Amino acid sequence: MDNSIKVFAPASVSNVGPGFDILGYAINDIGDTITMSLKDENTIEISCPGFDLPTNPTENIAGVALQALLDRLNSTQGFKMEISKNVLPGSGLGSSASSAAAAVFAANELLRNPFTKTELVEFAMMGEALVSGKPHADNVAPSLLGGFVLVRSYEPLEVVSLQYPKALMTVIIHPQIEVKTAYSKEILPKVIPLALAVKQWGNVAGLVSGLASSDYDLIGNSLQDVIAEPVRSALIPGFYDLKNSAVENGALGCSISGSGPSVFALCVGEETAEKIANGFKAVYDKLNIDYKIYRSFINEEGTKLIG
Amino acid sequence: MDNSIKVFAPASVSNVGPGFDILGYAINDIGDTITMSLKDENTIEISCPGFDLPTNPTENIAGVALQALLDRLNSTQGFKMEISKNVLPGSGLGSSASSAAAAVFAANELLRNPFTKTELVEFAMMGEALVSGKPHADNVAPSLLGGFVLVRSYEPLEVVSLQYPKALMTVIIHPQIEVKTAYSKEILPKVIPLALAVKQWGNVAGLVSGLASSDYDLIGNSLQDVIAEPVRSALIPGFYDLKNSAVENGALGCSISGSGPSVFALCVGEETAEKIANGFKAVYDKLNIDYKIYRSFINEEGTKLIG
Repeated sequence: MDNSIKVFAPASVSNVGPGFDILGYAINDIGDTITMSLKDENTIEISCPGFDLPTNPTENIAGVALQALLDRLNSTQGFKMEISKNVLPGSGLGSSASSAAAAVFAANELLRNPFTKTELVEFAMMGEALVSGKPHADNVAPSLLGGFVLVRSYEPLEVVSLQYPKALMTVIIHPQIEVKTAYSKEILPKVIPLALAVKQWGNVAGLVSGLASSDYDLIGNSLQDVIAEPVRSALIPGFYDLKNSAVENGALGCSISGSGPSVFALCVGEETAEKIANGFKAVYDKLNIDYKIYRSFINEEGTKLIG
Repeated sequence: MDNSIKVFAPASVSNVGPGFDILGYAINDIGDTITMSLKDENTIEISCPGFDLPTNPTENIAGVALQALLDRLNSTQGFKMEISKNVLPGSGLGSSASSAAAAVFAANELLRNPFTKTELVEFAMMGEALVSGKPHADNVAPSLLGGFVLVRSYEPLEVVSLQYPKALMTVIIHPQIEVKTAYSKEILPKVIPLALAVKQWGNVAGLVSGLASSDYDLIGNSLQDVIAEPVRSALIPGFYDLKNSAVENGALGCSISGSGPSVFALCVGEETAEKIANGFKAVYDKLNIDYKIYRSFINEEGTKLIG
């Protein structure tokens, strides 16, 4: 495409143990790439070669996110975009969030940056709403901003970049099975005992404090999800074998990425990350289920221009 | 008393907005003083002049806490203690926790410090269990350690001293009315909607992050309790007038201290603290209810030897 730009938006891990619906971090290497250019006609033209995704902008996550941005500007500018997906939808790694983040970032660039990255979260969220029923920011915010991100509140939207130790690494296994996000949400309890909620927010507080003070013991002790993991783990073959293996191999903690089926571990240093990755492989080779494994530091940059 | 020592344990604010059952901070000036000495006979002798509190050690908070410490040491050492209470029981300012903290700290001193301050939390908690039915640490931990304290977990007990900006001040109004802790606990919901719990832990995460990074806007935005305050506020005359007045006078936030009836505000600087205090006075003078008002930086020292 002429006068086109190319943007990369990283995949992300949301929930992060106790931080159900409020925490997420971005990862390196995998994510979506969008090539975008302005068009003279006032339509949004979408292609996504190799993926069976809707190309009608009102049904496509990236299209909806872009439209939300244009609506705010009262703009009828037309765009052409080609989405190159690197993470499978339904992985639990914020695949749709990456597309939405890349789309709004690219459009913002082409429109000479009327919005800050943080302001873009709100538009990208609208794309997410298309898949998950309501706007979620715990994947789009880390994908846009990079790092460890807290979504403190939705009304009004407040997104906070957390402090975290730069030595932190993550290992992720993505079992090549399908878990429908809708079902994964449906099985969650609608009400929870107050005592259990207190445990969860004690761990959330511990995790945020541990990240801020580089206290790895505290991070590890706090990486407990007593709400979603106990029910969602049943949808992931060998979940507890993965978790035990990760902890035996030196992980600070291990839980479900987003609504699954991907499982993440956090650890310190590349050697430990390699051990954990090998442990994950051993568990899944025995189960005879295909998988992909990723190892990464926390992505610090978020969505960025790559061409 | 001969060979006696004198110990001061500060009062404390627990819950601190969203941190129900897990957060607390210590305050200056008010608290309990215990004068303690060793005895030859293996009994615990308690007096509490001017207060109608049980002097039988198995029914007295300080006695129970001290006994928990002795049990751990398999010790039958006898003690004599005189408790001088400076905060009324039932204030919501950790009155019983101050007595428990002072008792275990003083005994530990007299026994030549077999335990660290953090280890003492567990024993002091046992005294608290006597009043509230189950062991709580969100008042005893800040009273012992000083500062802003997180009780991440009870099983196992993990207590974390949080980072916080030293310019932070608190203003507290203690209405001279009685709110039974048991009733204040009884009216809390036993189960809560997941969506509400998510709001609460978003705010908990925001508060911890804001304290760690001295982000006063974030602290202020996060000082919201959507679980306990909506029900407990009904037990405190003029609660929302106090809250509105505090915010109008520059408070970062304002909520119920512990299970009430005391109400706390957090703010920055002495001038703002004075305005907030005057606002509190104006509200309660109109209601014609007696009150006490305290203004303080966060107490950094916790329980200490004073003689």
